[in-house]
Order: sequence, then structure tokens, then C-alpha cells
Amino acid sequence: MDRQQIIATAHEMADAARAAILPFFRVPGLEAENKLTAGFDPVTAADHAAERAMRSVLARRRPTDAILGEEFGAQEGTSGLTWVLDPIDGTRAFISGTPTWGVLIAVSDDSGPVYGMIDQPYIGERFEGGFGRASLTGPHGTMPLRTNPAARLAEAKLFTTFPEVGTEQDRLGFRAVAERARLVRYGMDCYGYALVALGQADLVIEAGLNAYDIQGPMAVIAAAGGIVTDWSGGAAHHGGRAVAAANEELHAEALELLNPYA
Amino acid sequence: MDRQQIIATAHEMADAARAAILPFFRVPGLEAENKLTAGFDPVTAADHAAERAMRSVLARRRPTDAILGEEFGAQEGTSGLTWVLDPIDGTRAFISGTPTWGVLIAVSDDSGPVYGMIDQPYIGERFEGGFGRASLTGPHGTMPLRTNPAARLAEAKLFTTFPEVGTEQDRLGFRAVAERARLVRYGMDCYGYALVALGQADLVIEAGLNAYDIQGPMAVIAAAGGIVTDWSGGAAHHGGRAVAAANEELHAEALELLNPYA
Repeated sequence: MDRQQIIATAHEMADAARAAILPFFRVPGLEAENKLTAGFDPVTAADHAAERAMRSVLARRRPTDAILGEEFGAQEGTSGLTWVLDPIDGTRAFISGTPTWGVLIAVSDDSGPVYGMIDQPYIGERFEGGFGRASLTGPHGTMPLRTNPAARLAEAKLFTTFPEVGTEQDRLGFRAVAERARLVRYGMDCYGYALVALGQADLVIEAGLNAYDIQGPMAVIAAAGGIVTDWSGGAAHHGGRAVAAANEELHAEALELLNPYA
Repeated sequence: MDRQQIIATAHEMADAARAAILPFFRVPGLEAENKLTAGFDPVTAADHAAERAMRSVLARRRPTDAILGEEFGAQEGTSGLTWVLDPIDGTRAFISGTPTWGVLIAVSDDSGPVYGMIDQPYIGERFEGGFGRASLTGPHGTMPLRTNPAARLAEAKLFTTFPEVGTEQDRLGFRAVAERARLVRYGMDCYGYALVALGQADLVIEAGLNAYDIQGPMAVIAAAGGIVTDWSGGAAHHGGRAVAAANEELHAEALELLNPYA
């Protein structure tokens, strides 16, 4: 595996996605205009443009890798590596103008993601992890990513996207942990995982995920010292329910409470 | 009233607040270290530093204006104008690393705020409104602020900070509107008001506010074409319950539903 070439490819893809998406973000009146043109959806348009741009980079630089993308599905490959792409994670954030949606990119082998990225085009923040890297490059420079090794549940800052979380069973599992955490925050989509990698948040608990929602964040958090599994402690990279924790002790505390609902 | 001098003073204050706050934002291990030094609180330190920096600008440039600040309270003046300051709106966002807290600045006369600002130092976004201005200056340039004139409740994007909103009565009022809105988002603090001014969100409903939480956003939204009142349609600038709407029709729809709880 040519790690440097994979990393360079991922950055080129994220740059291409930024250029494709930003013309659609916060465009005044775009949604209103769209209604007049028979249901054209700006988010889908931005999603499509970004995934096409990323696939175009891959076709040129990594033609033998497989691809799994939210918008254009699976493309087989022969290298043993798969690029897992979510061009815009956080559709609702995007259409509301919130700067906490992201472009998710992961490179996976049979065991799961080995390298990944969470990119926020509007702020200009890129979180990456894997192949010995764990860093944020943003408007105030580049800094290493490191999860909080000391966080325990009683002091933990917990994120999820919606108060409902998923099914009623999912919600009950989430609440069991939330009631014991110091602080619960909503509405951050993939940005919550970025904050765990940064050592600012400690836990993310979600349900109903797809593989492309979680693989990029998984790689970033693992590289920063955290741990991401499903609610039973098994592999999370196929999607479903995920718990991302800053350290193993906190992860164990969360799993114990999630167990009755897993 | 020297409007140009007031505007220049507000920008100098916001610049000073940025410089005071950013050294405290996302500092790795700051909270852990703080516990060792007997309860020093990084948010309070950043709050204090920013409000002091803003008051220092006022002492030099506008010594006869009154001040009402979250951290250092009220200072009387003789000019008939009051600067209303919240050095960090969104403490929980700040300590979680989320980039959606803000510095709030308003200039008020007896009728309420006449000019205001929502500043996000990390992203580098400044929303301002009043004295004929309504604009955002951010990482991608300067653009006018204009609320969405077409938004009605059935298509509205509604923001509030916590799912609980406030008291049980507050929560019920919020839910009455939320059930009829297209989309509900949480966790944005003052950034939700900025998104209404930008025409990206349509409604913010909150309770339990202080004057310094709402006056900056009120001025920005009013200048962008929106309307902010309390839940009965009365003045919101003293704090309490607030509803910020993109236009009068949407505001009327929200008030009708909030009325039983107002």
C-alpha cells in the first residue's frame, strides 16, 4: 500500500469536494427557486457534484480501488481497498446554513477503515487520521488530534444528532448514558466525532447509521486515541448503532449502560 | 448620535474580544489542568478577559455611554445609550469545542437595541445589523443579510438551544410550534439567530433569556428584515421568552401557537 499516495489522493478528493459543494451552500433563495423548477434539490445537487468530483480523482489516481459512495453506490475494485464516501454528512445542517456538516472520506480494507477524513469546507477545517497521522488543519493552523484520556462518564460531554436518536429502543439506550453524563449536546452530525478526536467532546452515541456515515469518523478517532464500536462492542464500520469514546474506560462505562438495549 | 463612530467602536470591541477569547478556545487539557488549580474555570476566564477588553475600548472611545455586561454588571452613563454585552454566548458550546458560540454586542436606547453584532471568533464570522447595515463578513467574503420573506410555518426551519427549552410550560409552547415546522434543530445558541438573519433558518424560539442574550441578535435580525418579540408579541429586549421570525406572517403563525403558553 502506497500510504503517501493514498493520503495525497484523499486530500485531492477533499479539495475537489469543497470546490463542488461551496457554490451550493447558503445561496440565498436557492430553495425557493428550486421549487419553481420541479423539485430540484440543492442538497442532492451538491451531494452529486461532490461525489462525482471525488470519483473523478479516484478514476485517475486509484483506478483499481473499489468505491462505496452514498449517492452512486458501489463500484468493485481489485486492490483490496475500498473508498467509502459521504459527500455531505448532515443534510439538515446544510440546508439550515449551519457550519457543522462535513465531507466524509475513508479508505478501508477487510478489517475496516485504515485512514479517514472529516472535512468542513465552509470553515476550512480538515480532520484526518490514519497511517501515523492525526491532525486538524483549519483557519488557525495545524494541530495534533488527541482524544481526552482522562474523561469518565460523570464528566463526559456527550453528542448525538437528534434527541430521538433512532427507534424508541435506541432512544432509551442513549438516555441511559445521557442521564449519567455531564453535558449532552445535539445537532452536530459528523462534527461531534471531530470534537471527540480533538479532545473537546468525549462521547458520541448514534443509531441508524450507514457505513459511509461512520467510517471516516472511525479512522480519525482511532488515530487520535479513541475507540469506536457498535453498542455491543463489535465492529461499527458496517453502520447501525455506534458509540465513539475518547478512551477505553469511558467506552466500557458506556457499553455497560447500552448493553440492555444493544 | 455619531453612527459611524458607534459602528467603528463596535468593530474594535469585537476585534478585542476575539483576541481575548481565542487563546482559551480548544486548548488541549485546559480543563484538566484547571481542576488542579482549585476550580479555575476557562470559560469564566475567557468571558472575563473578553468583557474587560470590550469595556476598555468603551472607556476610551465612548466614556459617557452606559454598559450592561454579563460578567461585570451595569455601569451608568449620561448619553442615553447603553452597550449590552455578552462576551461568550454559548458556554456549553465553547467548552465542547463547537464553533457556534458567539460574542454579542448591542447598542440600545430607551426603545431597545438600535445596532448589534453576533461575532464568531473561531470561524471569523461577523454578523452586524442596524444604522442601515445588515451584513455578514466571514471566511468567504462579505454578503448582505436578508431574512427569508417567503417562509411559512409548514416549511420553516426552527432552532432552539436545548430540547427542554426552559420550564415545562416553555417546553410545551415550543413543542406546539415545533410540531408544525418542517425541521427542528438544536444546539446552536446565538448562531441560530445569525442563521435567521442570513435567510437560512426561519424561526428561533427560546426562554429564560437575559437582556444580553437577545439584544445583539434582535438588532441583527431586525436589520435583515425579521422580527423579534416575546411570546405575547411584546418587547423582547429585556430578556425572558423570545421568538425570532424571518417575516411578519411567520411571526403571527408562531405567536398564535405560543399564545396559550405565553
